[in-house]
Amino acid sequence: MSAPAAAAAADLAKLREKQPLIHNITNLVVMNFTANALLAMGASPVMAHAIDEVADMVGIASALVLNIGTLSAEWAASMLAAGRRASEIGLPVVVDPVGAGATPFRTATARRIIAGTRPAVIRGNASEILSLKESGSGARGVDSRHAVEQAAEAAHGLAAELGCTLAITGPVDLVTDGRRSLRVANGHPLMARITGTGCTATAAVAAFLAVDPDPVRAAAAALAYFGLAGEVAAQKASAPGSFMIQLLDALYTITPEQLERGCRISNE
Amino acid sequence: MSAPAAAAAADLAKLREKQPLIHNITNLVVMNFTANALLAMGASPVMAHAIDEVADMVGIASALVLNIGTLSAEWAASMLAAGRRASEIGLPVVVDPVGAGATPFRTATARRIIAGTRPAVIRGNASEILSLKESGSGARGVDSRHAVEQAAEAAHGLAAELGCTLAITGPVDLVTDGRRSLRVANGHPLMARITGTGCTATAAVAAFLAVDPDPVRAAAAALAYFGLAGEVAAQKASAPGSFMIQLLDALYTITPEQLERGCRISNE
Amino acid sequence: MSAPAAAAAADLAKLREKQPLIHNITNLVVMNFTANALLAMGASPVMAHAIDEVADMVGIASALVLNIGTLSAEWAASMLAAGRRASEIGLPVVVDPVGAGATPFRTATARRIIAGTRPAVIRGNASEILSLKESGSGARGVDSRHAVEQAAEAAHGLAAELGCTLAITGPVDLVTDGRRSLRVANGHPLMARITGTGCTATAAVAAFLAVDPDPVRAAAAALAYFGLAGEVAAQKASAPGSFMIQLLDALYTITPEQLERGCRISNE
Repeated sequence: MSAPAAAAAADLAKLREKQPLIHNITNLVVMNFTANALLAMGASPVMAHAIDEVADMVGIASALVLNIGTLSAEWAASMLAAGRRASEIGLPVVVDPVGAGATPFRTATARRIIAGTRPAVIRGNASEILSLKESGSGARGVDSRHAVEQAAEAAHGLAAELGCTLAITGPVDLVTDGRRSLRVANGHPLMARITGTGCTATAAVAAFLAVDPDPVRAAAAALAYFGLAGEVAAQKASAPGSFMIQLLDALYTITPEQLERGCRISNE
Repeated sequence: MSAPAAAAAADLAKLREKQPLIHNITNLVVMNFTANALLAMGASPVMAHAIDEVADMVGIASALVLNIGTLSAEWAASMLAAGRRASEIGLPVVVDPVGAGATPFRTATARRIIAGTRPAVIRGNASEILSLKESGSGARGVDSRHAVEQAAEAAHGLAAELGCTLAITGPVDLVTDGRRSLRVANGHPLMARITGTGCTATAAVAAFLAVDPDPVRAAAAALAYFGLAGEVAAQKASAPGSFMIQLLDALYTITPEQLERGCRISNE
Repeated sequence: MSAPAAAAAADLAKLREKQPLIHNITNLVVMNFTANALLAMGASPVMAHAIDEVADMVGIASALVLNIGTLSAEWAASMLAAGRRASEIGLPVVVDPVGAGATPFRTATARRIIAGTRPAVIRGNASEILSLKESGSGARGVDSRHAVEQAAEAAHGLAAELGCTLAITGPVDLVTDGRRSLRVANGHPLMARITGTGCTATAAVAAFLAVDPDPVRAAAAALAYFGLAGEVAAQKASAPGSFMIQLLDALYTITPEQLERGCRISNE
């Protein structure tokens, strides 16, 4: 077994033991699925977005997810307040810039949240991540067909520039902090046919960061685990409704040993 | 095979080929199910409601859904802004006046959105559609038992008055633009025992409108396809939880050929 | 068969016959699941939160649910307006103080809503209910491990103080109005591994209150029925995704006779 595979297994065991509280300020579409996925993994989800309480909620959480999928000015303000408090107390933050590049408001807000919160990890698809560069091209957003490979070239520089780890997901995922890079080959095409798999992968990264201080290792482990759950689900379901349910089941049933065996993380 | 059946099959094939982006400003209850249903059909859903970006999102979409199910003044303003932009650039708009007739706020807002956006299609149940008439009776809203037949009498005049196509769903659906009318007999009673089937039928109409410029034909095709998915699901599930999942699966697995064979569209 | 079991069966039969409209102002995470669960039970759900319409919606409903799970100042104002109108016209209100104790905003808002609306029933876990006491300890909120037993000691006094029935859920539930108390032993541990089971139990209490004027009896019946559905689901599913779907199915398929046989309500 490789070192990353053993580390992923150790992270999953620790996640199930600690059941860390993950504070999510996320989008309206995926809230239910993400909460159920975090519970199935072994984490404790809380969704709270009121400006009146986000700083307090951050204070009792073990990681924070900021996801702009159904953004508004009010929610962006709450995300910034929560992210700033998390930065102050050293809580890991994961940002999901859903649809960045699709509209100017979305791109600008994603950049503003990232600048204001210094996230540990940003998880997105290739076009979303590329849009975070000041010279980013106007992409189609959530539905982009940009290849991870195109983004990979830019990713190392962008990670260094932003001072964080980037997790770019696609057929093969790339995780890089600008110096170290890992590839994750787990996953299944049906994952793209249900809504919220990207967002929920982001939440998984937060759950693993809550128990593993190394952002590159934790992000790769989370993506391998989530992708493996997709592979297990696809063995039992061939259409998206059933697949979605089997995916939740697989997150719950996969053991650390199965993750160590099934995990496909490699050095770049 | 009838002409409407062949047209429905052609629409579905085109939908799967083009994967049009459908912009939804819809209610909080059905967002996840609607997004998953659109993905299962072959479309690309995006949910975005911020006044800061709806006009831009409309600009990259192929159809727009405005659904007032969990209405607020802020969301109504976004719906109007999005709908106006869609009208300006010729993007088809589908309005779902969920619960119109149940409260004065809901009825007035539904009328205001329709007046301001000139929708291609309005999809609702009989009591919702009837409430759109200035002389509309105070109905029980989303849970009405009004028969489609009662609404049918008023529908032709109302469609002409509003200058759009009405899709009134019930045991047998009626689609009319005031001159041409089609009936759709597909569907299953279990569809009324899960939330969001009406709202998701509306989203299906938008997806078909994105690939077929004829509102009467596209709406009937979408309702036949969605109803057929309910029939297929009911062959595999007899209780609402399982049925909901089988419905998503059926939207994904039904082929254009199966739709052509199973489609029950007739002239009025 | 015991008197509470026969009463629970009678309530369920009446619920299916009357199909009462249940108005929910609830959280963004559980809206879809709660609406589907209410439909599966036989009730008619409506979700509406706009300050412009909540009083009107209360006017046509048979019970009101106020759930602070994803609270904001605006939604709290709507909850208060709806709750006050419900009090005026004698409509039963059920409050779910999700996460009370977790943040000062949440605790204060829960207390304010309860003071302003005089609910028939408050349903929460032990730490949420304990936080409603002015001397309530700062608990971990939604994920508390406080035992029902600890809360039970305080519950009788608190119920009398608040002038309402408390339903404290856990491995064995306690329902008390300060004078009469019932215990409900139905349920299954997998219910804690999916999101929204507590919130949906609250909605079930509202549905039973819509057809049974006795808050202690109605709350115990609802919790027994919901817990029994969990037991039935666990016979068919051993992981949370499948369990969630089987739970919806069981709510639909359980007959009044099965509830009378499976119901485990006892005097304290």
